[in-house]
Amino acid sequence: VKSKLPQTTTTIFTQMSQLAVEHEAINLSQGFPNFPVDQRLKDLINHYVQADYNQYAPMVGVGELRQAIAKKKWELYASRLDAETEITITNGATEAIFSAITALVRAGDEVIVFEPAYDSYVPAIEVNGGVVVPLQLRSPDYRVDWDEVRDKISPRTRMIIINTPHNPTGTVFDKTDLKALQSITDDTDILILSDEVYQHLIFDGRQHESVLRYPDLYCRSIVTMSFGKTFHATGWRIGYCIAPPEITAEIRKVHQFNTFSINRPLQHALADYLAEPEHYRLLPDFYQRKRDVFREAMQDTPFELLECSGTYFALAAYRQLSDLGDQAFARWLTREKGVATIPISSFYSDGTDEHIVRFCFAKTEESLLAAAERLKR
Amino acid sequence: VKSKLPQTTTTIFTQMSQLAVEHEAINLSQGFPNFPVDQRLKDLINHYVQADYNQYAPMVGVGELRQAIAKKKWELYASRLDAETEITITNGATEAIFSAITALVRAGDEVIVFEPAYDSYVPAIEVNGGVVVPLQLRSPDYRVDWDEVRDKISPRTRMIIINTPHNPTGTVFDKTDLKALQSITDDTDILILSDEVYQHLIFDGRQHESVLRYPDLYCRSIVTMSFGKTFHATGWRIGYCIAPPEITAEIRKVHQFNTFSINRPLQHALADYLAEPEHYRLLPDFYQRKRDVFREAMQDTPFELLECSGTYFALAAYRQLSDLGDQAFARWLTREKGVATIPISSFYSDGTDEHIVRFCFAKTEESLLAAAERLKR
Ligand SMILES: CSCCC(=O)C(=O)O
Ligand SMILES: CSCCC(=O)C(=O)O
Repeated sequence: VKSKLPQTTTTIFTQMSQLAVEHEAINLSQGFPNFPVDQRLKDLINHYVQADYNQYAPMVGVGELRQAIAKKKWELYASRLDAETEITITNGATEAIFSAITALVRAGDEVIVFEPAYDSYVPAIEVNGGVVVPLQLRSPDYRVDWDEVRDKISPRTRMIIINTPHNPTGTVFDKTDLKALQSITDDTDILILSDEVYQHLIFDGRQHESVLRYPDLYCRSIVTMSFGKTFHATGWRIGYCIAPPEITAEIRKVHQFNTFSINRPLQHALADYLAEPEHYRLLPDFYQRKRDVFREAMQDTPFELLECSGTYFALAAYRQLSDLGDQAFARWLTREKGVATIPISSFYSDGTDEHIVRFCFAKTEESLLAAAERLKR
Repeated sequence: VKSKLPQTTTTIFTQMSQLAVEHEAINLSQGFPNFPVDQRLKDLINHYVQADYNQYAPMVGVGELRQAIAKKKWELYASRLDAETEITITNGATEAIFSAITALVRAGDEVIVFEPAYDSYVPAIEVNGGVVVPLQLRSPDYRVDWDEVRDKISPRTRMIIINTPHNPTGTVFDKTDLKALQSITDDTDILILSDEVYQHLIFDGRQHESVLRYPDLYCRSIVTMSFGKTFHATGWRIGYCIAPPEITAEIRKVHQFNTFSINRPLQHALADYLAEPEHYRLLPDFYQRKRDVFREAMQDTPFELLECSGTYFALAAYRQLSDLGDQAFARWLTREKGVATIPISSFYSDGTDEHIVRFCFAKTEESLLAAAERLKR
């Protein structure tokens, strides 16, 4: 079988999680919480399973859930969304990204991707015959030079993928970034895929700068969101995609034949749960505390933590500790110190290695303190 | 936005279900059961949600579930499957079909599709730049002429899609069909995508002729299966894909970036449930009884039911009743008689219309009798 994706291997997240299990390491690699889901949400799911909401949901998603999202966005972003034509429930943000790219990127189209980049963007582009145009960001601040972006734009540029709050760096876009992106793409046909799965995980009083706040940008954007990340249940596979009606119509054509529809009891449970806004309003504080606990505990280790303004990831340079490349270092750390992390070179298409690893702090304080303790030695 | 799928509209299943709701019709159109899921299975799901099996499942699926499937197939088909390398859990059979076609069909590849055909095959082929080569089957018996298949094969043929038991016709392949398919494709590189989602819904003592029974055919096949159809829960979105290791590896590359993984509590619940084989052993009798109840009740109506050997669908010719084309007839029937069906021309790419509609009998006996009663008048 000749492969359409010859470069693709098992993701680094699966690799490191498996290694963590093998060595009984504290797993701060793959991004997922190790604490329970809210009892209320679990009970809501059970309610709808028992009440037999068990047949096909509508292809675009359960109406009540799309309404609840529209209402939430209205409150958060003051941009009015039409649940009927702009919101589609998907199998996690992953499916939203894949279906959007499949619907919108044609053979030969160029897509600008900022690196370090989440690992699903590139294969989705490539399997559709698109051409990835990478643009490297560097530690410690990973700022985008928008003039450089402008230089990368060609007549073939079809899409720019952004991600804020950003995995793996924990940086966030501010107003200046969004305005620069808008001015660069004004009067073009370029689409923006804005991966905002960490929308609620933003710290120090910052506000999430969603493209939904910028109507002149949103008009050519696709925004992807994740309930798994927001409500501590990465294993449920439910997210959504927001885009203007004309773009949504194209994405739904792919979604309809890719996954058809999403787990129904989950959708009803989340619709009820979203109607109680305290569940997401408390999230920034909840995760900021985890970030601070972890940062403080790590002060007595040889790791230098980089700034983290959002997401549940913190980057750390390990130069004082080892000369190993980050792939070898992350594996050594798992085996010898019992703490699993993600090497950042996995997020660069050319393997750029700045001797930095990523810690996931979506863990109990107990786990975070235990990990820091192991890293002191 | 220029569409990559200009032909695609809302599926006929969604259209007819919506019309059924509007007119308070008995919905025998879209295929889904209207009776509850087994209490044991609902309780198992709740158990795993409450016990917080709520984070990412492994990308290929939970090990226990893949083992349970391998064991079941061994028992049913006497062909040994390796859970590690041959089984992948997917977001329903729909995702299995889409990911398999995306992984294996390239621009310009030809795919032979028997019509009437389930409506997800063609868009999946087209969005990947493949060329659909339709081959029409006709009422009343919809038999495949394998010499005609042989004639359709060209050097560009990449895949043949089969579906047994067959939606919408209720026909099933027998040994002769499988052997003919094998001899036609021996010594070629042609792949077989075998959609066997109705594997357990087969009647009158017949045995399901899976490609898994034919090692020389299985070696170049992809088999797609559905838990939603088997266990009366079409809204959960969980199925699987079986293929030899080399083919599975390619499908997983797409699956990994398309959906990443599938709802975890569901997977654990189904692993336990599959260990109790009575749940699927009783299915043929359970649905055969529904078929017979429906057939008998329909005898006093002007509909002529065609033979049904499998699936939960029965075709009916309505020539004695109306001269309308099947699209108009199905809508008229929903509005005027309060029974929703699916017009079969929707399953033909050229709209072939033999004045036949499809009834779904995955319904309570009460619903089936009530529908027949309405159709008498
Ligand atoms: C789909 S596994 C990866 C989870 C994640 O988002 C991450 O660790 O970056
Ligand atoms: C995905 S909706 C269609 C359900 C079904 O399999 C059918 O009605 O044929």
